[in-house]
Amino acid sequence: MTTVEKPVYSVIGTRPIRPDGVEKVTGKAQYGADVHLPGMIYGRILRSPHAHARIRSIDTSAAAKHPGVLAVVTHGDLPAADDRVEELGETAVNVRELSSNILASDKVLYRGHAVAAVAAASPHVAEEALAKIKVDYEVLPAVVDVRDAMREDAPLLNEARRTKSMGGQVSDRPSNIASHNQFKAGDVEAAFAEADVVVEREFTTKMVHQGYVEPQNATAAWNSDGTLTVYTSTQGAFAVRAQLSEILRHPLARIKVVPMEIGGGFGGKTVVYLDPVAAVLSKKTGRPVKLTMNRAEVFEGTGPTSGTYIKIKAAAKDGRLTAVKATLAYEAGAYPGSSVGAGAMTMLSPYDVENFEIDAYDVVVNKPKTAAYRAPGAPAAAFATESAVDELTKKLGIDPLDFRRNSASRMGTRMVNGIAFPRIGNEETLDAAINSPHYRSPIEGPNRGRGVASGYWFNAGMQSSVTAAVNSDGTINLIEGSTDIGGTRASLAMQLAETLSVPYETIRPTVADTDSVGHNDVTGGSRTTFASGLAVYEAGMDVRRQMCARAAKLWSVDPDDVVYEGGKLRCTKDSTRELTFSELAKQSARTGGPIVGKASLLARGAGGAFATHIVDVEVDPETGKTTILRYTAVQDVGTAIHPAYVEGQIQGGVVQGIGWALNEEYAYDESGRMLNSSFLDYRMPTTLDVPMIDTIVVEVPNPGHPYGVRGVGEVPIVPPLAAIANAIADATGHRFTDLPMSPRRVLEALEGLE
Amino acid sequence: MTTVEKPVYSVIGTRPIRPDGVEKVTGKAQYGADVHLPGMIYGRILRSPHAHARIRSIDTSAAAKHPGVLAVVTHGDLPAADDRVEELGETAVNVRELSSNILASDKVLYRGHAVAAVAAASPHVAEEALAKIKVDYEVLPAVVDVRDAMREDAPLLNEARRTKSMGGQVSDRPSNIASHNQFKAGDVEAAFAEADVVVEREFTTKMVHQGYVEPQNATAAWNSDGTLTVYTSTQGAFAVRAQLSEILRHPLARIKVVPMEIGGGFGGKTVVYLDPVAAVLSKKTGRPVKLTMNRAEVFEGTGPTSGTYIKIKAAAKDGRLTAVKATLAYEAGAYPGSSVGAGAMTMLSPYDVENFEIDAYDVVVNKPKTAAYRAPGAPAAAFATESAVDELTKKLGIDPLDFRRNSASRMGTRMVNGIAFPRIGNEETLDAAINSPHYRSPIEGPNRGRGVASGYWFNAGMQSSVTAAVNSDGTINLIEGSTDIGGTRASLAMQLAETLSVPYETIRPTVADTDSVGHNDVTGGSRTTFASGLAVYEAGMDVRRQMCARAAKLWSVDPDDVVYEGGKLRCTKDSTRELTFSELAKQSARTGGPIVGKASLLARGAGGAFATHIVDVEVDPETGKTTILRYTAVQDVGTAIHPAYVEGQIQGGVVQGIGWALNEEYAYDESGRMLNSSFLDYRMPTTLDVPMIDTIVVEVPNPGHPYGVRGVGEVPIVPPLAAIANAIADATGHRFTDLPMSPRRVLEALEGLE
Repeated sequence: MTTVEKPVYSVIGTRPIRPDGVEKVTGKAQYGADVHLPGMIYGRILRSPHAHARIRSIDTSAAAKHPGVLAVVTHGDLPAADDRVEELGETAVNVRELSSNILASDKVLYRGHAVAAVAAASPHVAEEALAKIKVDYEVLPAVVDVRDAMREDAPLLNEARRTKSMGGQVSDRPSNIASHNQFKAGDVEAAFAEADVVVEREFTTKMVHQGYVEPQNATAAWNSDGTLTVYTSTQGAFAVRAQLSEILRHPLARIKVVPMEIGGGFGGKTVVYLDPVAAVLSKKTGRPVKLTMNRAEVFEGTGPTSGTYIKIKAAAKDGRLTAVKATLAYEAGAYPGSSVGAGAMTMLSPYDVENFEIDAYDVVVNKPKTAAYRAPGAPAAAFATESAVDELTKKLGIDPLDFRRNSASRMGTRMVNGIAFPRIGNEETLDAAINSPHYRSPIEGPNRGRGVASGYWFNAGMQSSVTAAVNSDGTINLIEGSTDIGGTRASLAMQLAETLSVPYETIRPTVADTDSVGHNDVTGGSRTTFASGLAVYEAGMDVRRQMCARAAKLWSVDPDDVVYEGGKLRCTKDSTRELTFSELAKQSARTGGPIVGKASLLARGAGGAFATHIVDVEVDPETGKTTILRYTAVQDVGTAIHPAYVEGQIQGGVVQGIGWALNEEYAYDESGRMLNSSFLDYRMPTTLDVPMIDTIVVEVPNPGHPYGVRGVGEVPIVPPLAAIANAIADATGHRFTDLPMSPRRVLEALEGLE
Repeated sequence: MTTVEKPVYSVIGTRPIRPDGVEKVTGKAQYGADVHLPGMIYGRILRSPHAHARIRSIDTSAAAKHPGVLAVVTHGDLPAADDRVEELGETAVNVRELSSNILASDKVLYRGHAVAAVAAASPHVAEEALAKIKVDYEVLPAVVDVRDAMREDAPLLNEARRTKSMGGQVSDRPSNIASHNQFKAGDVEAAFAEADVVVEREFTTKMVHQGYVEPQNATAAWNSDGTLTVYTSTQGAFAVRAQLSEILRHPLARIKVVPMEIGGGFGGKTVVYLDPVAAVLSKKTGRPVKLTMNRAEVFEGTGPTSGTYIKIKAAAKDGRLTAVKATLAYEAGAYPGSSVGAGAMTMLSPYDVENFEIDAYDVVVNKPKTAAYRAPGAPAAAFATESAVDELTKKLGIDPLDFRRNSASRMGTRMVNGIAFPRIGNEETLDAAINSPHYRSPIEGPNRGRGVASGYWFNAGMQSSVTAAVNSDGTINLIEGSTDIGGTRASLAMQLAETLSVPYETIRPTVADTDSVGHNDVTGGSRTTFASGLAVYEAGMDVRRQMCARAAKLWSVDPDDVVYEGGKLRCTKDSTRELTFSELAKQSARTGGPIVGKASLLARGAGGAFATHIVDVEVDPETGKTTILRYTAVQDVGTAIHPAYVEGQIQGGVVQGIGWALNEEYAYDESGRMLNSSFLDYRMPTTLDVPMIDTIVVEVPNPGHPYGVRGVGEVPIVPPLAAIANAIADATGHRFTDLPMSPRRVLEALEGLE
């Protein structure tokens, strides 16, 4: 672990057990599938068998009469939605489109698109009744590839769609291109002309899924007075509430969302699918209704990340990156809103490059509406940039990390949006990679190669609210509203313990429902330990202030003469006056009532995160299979609150990147049917597929946070795609520009070489 | 409704529907009996068949081997408890005695005393296994009447018990008298000597039960990491948590108490019975364990209110009450802690009486440990005072309300503890009674009579915490921790609506669990609408301040130049600047994050409540049955936040008082066996037994609350006992001094007269 200017902490940096750990490993934690309410019934969803079709009519009468069926709903059971765009989670959402994705309106836009839902006494009865719903489809030609969809003669998903550009221009003709944005600076053509070396390449990546273990689920109870309670698996209970409020046109205060434990999200659980359907089925039946997806529904009916096409031209001069021209086209899926913007915004962040021109296209295709997936948009873009940079260094014969170090962005370097970086740890991360045992050791043997790549993620701030209630025995209940995915109960409790100088074990963090805590944005954007941590710090300082005032009252002194130090209250004017945190807590009832600290804030000052990864691979020339021999992820985390969870986040991100690089993809036939919608056929890495991932945690404190937290979870998925491609190029001499680099594809390429 | 100096309110004083109304009337509200957790098992409790016995040994081996049994626990499974006295609910509790009441230690002290508990796969199996527990009892003589228990030769419940007196003196000899306190002023003997008339009487009341519809229940899940969650029916989730923490010697932050809806409490659900047993059974089995009582267990195993003996001597001179000497002896049940102190403290409150001497005895008997019951201690004491005053007025030939008006306490009158009353509404209440249509109408016909009586209750303050989270659509989530028994969700939401000048319907109040809100004391002492209301007001003012700051930021003006008026933000320097509450709420995310107001406080300034009741009865000389012909309850409520619920509280209190006066009693045989432990034999009034209770709501605002709230729920049970006895005396010429005035007892008395 490399440390830069790190203060001495007593709790931060230790590795206590997570508060939810025992519950989870003993199977007692309550997930959405565990919800059982009196009188509860079960829903199932009918999904489109076509990738693109007009719905002429839906006849639900036979299904409604099926014995045991209590209700059937279609899009008509949702309130009419208008075209407003609202901030309803990680990104802005068009309410009409969100609503049409919940239950298809006039058209189905992908195979798996929800069309109708049945509620019945058992899920099996509901499943039977689905077969009795008659949908009259007019099947339309489908388009499932981003480049095909951009062609002028492509089948149109929406005749009314026009391309919007950054300046507000709108195209004349209908198009599947929802938006086109451009980021530009300097003079790329002049830089290309002056360059020592130029590389130009096209890259493609396939749609991949977050692959969370727990399928989506939702149980809704709509009371006859209009109060609605929804139990669900989500990264953001308040985002679910906001989306339900918009889709159902129902006031926020009449909706309570109870976040159950979450079995993985990675960005995919920021958008609702089942929740509004469960709600309208419950409203119609007067019974609590539970819906759960099976794995095929998760693949075909939820939001994976975009397949992409990226064309890049990069130039170097004097051992530095001098110009990049890039075109990014990302599949949005059925409705606009891919993460192409974030791809464009992050792809050059590791570099101080003066000349660039990036065109970003958001394109609809007949596939599921994409959702966020860990550093959304960045991995595919970094795959292009970091592959091109690797090729430049190979042509120049320069060490790839030295080249990156020479070109590195630092404080003051302008991002593609023109804003200058605050204090960042890109250079420290590169230095740590260069000096790492891994990079300093040779890579030897046939069919083996080493690759490196860098990556960047913004990290987010957004809104957090927490309450810290001091109990009379000196223990503290920490009430927060951020889903705990990667250990944030621990990382927040640790920050409160640090702020109050009390033992971590005395703090009990709770992820409360939307009726029991102030607004919290989603756990996403690697924001929670940073932003909710900031709120925890402020709430802790609030507690300290209140305790000083109470001690002053007890001692009949001025509050300014009381200091809070090391978990004790002390009177600066009288050294005999001292109380521990617990001693004063016990007197709270007598001195003015409960001591409760709180903070609600819009967190600003999120610190961007940089990572550089080193990977050694061996490619089997017989089978085309790539084995990861050694992997080291170097990352600036700001401050590692709980180093074990930081390492775990980094390792998890790397493993997902390995899957994306080597095996994962949505395989489609020409009609738009997904061919591998099971974990048997959709090949994610298992523990047998990867070595222990080594981590090097660099700590360049974020000046925007009292403990220097930056955010950890997303950037580790950014470098692996390119790092592995660069390693395979090193091992085989063949540069792969299309993901995944599956054994079949590698073998075909190698055979082509021979 | 009589109004004194009442401001103009827009929400306060209206009668909206209660937020939990529809859930409750449609059967969807979740009570403790509805709790179902995965893997849950069921517990049953073995109870003592003896009123007093030493436990020589308990053999649980056969029960433990019974098929389907997972655990058996006895007192030995609870941690050793010491003799500390802690504030753990409405009153101070001795932890060792509380623990011994949960599961008997060396002795059983009443029939129904819990001795052991079994957890099994079904409640029936658990019930079967109870029969296999062998308890070797040494049966001891029992004492079940307070006067018997005070005798020197009485069987002693605890050989180590000594009588404690107010000054700290402790008696030499063991005694069942746990404490003796005295309140004294003036010179009673001189006043008696000078009096125009003196009355001396002895009164007895029987032990009666609160009679809540919902039996006690508790479901506990003890996780292997020591976190404990308890779902229960309680008036105070934090009190349950505190008691569990003490009994189980477990930190507060590791215990989460989830308050389910409550089917009545009336003071009886402030103490734990099943919760610790469920917890230790869950700890032992590793499974969630549910315990529920049947009605006989509720009668025999929970805390009713004391049977009492009261001797009173009262004197009048010049048409005023001049002296009272009284001895009060209250049954505490098996362990000390009756409400005799409150009886002594309230019995003279309606009067400005200079000379008094009150002796109060707290006495243990072989009956269940008493618990609070609506205005604990006051009804029996008022029965004595108000009967004696009635007799004085009869002897003097003075109208009983005129006599009370002449003797009335007012602001500045000293209470028996020497503290002067703040602004109270005793005189206004008496005036309203005197001028009421009921009192101004004649009572005619044979066997009919009219009685009046007054009463007083302190009303409590204590600790409350609330959070008001503003949603982006302008609705508000009000997070509180006070059990809603009598409509406090509504009364609190209304106070927030008034404070913020927003519609009541936009506010969603939630009673949160102990992990999700700051500390709140029990819903008891008529404190919630007052004290949690005060917290709601402060939280609302906090929201107003934050909104002014946000508007100032948006308008780039000084916060002092923004005012909050009528639910709008307005700039005093620029009349074009105006935003509604909702408009500003929508901009919260952009202007600094969520707007969350909060308050945690120790509420001081609770305003005492006075009531005067008028009742007309007819006594059937053939059967002895008393029929309530007409009943009017006049009460100063301070400010009626929700008049319908105020009236409902008053009517409910009166009906319970009628039951206590006429029929309710714990009937015991000589061995200490309760003879009527079912609702068939324990005769509570039904709707057929009572007429519509008329209410006259007097509003003398409490200066200690921004909206003048006093507290409503308890004082209406204080006057009925005496008012009905006075009416029966008026109808029959016979003064009844022993409750209940059941048909049998009335008939015997009337026959004795003839």
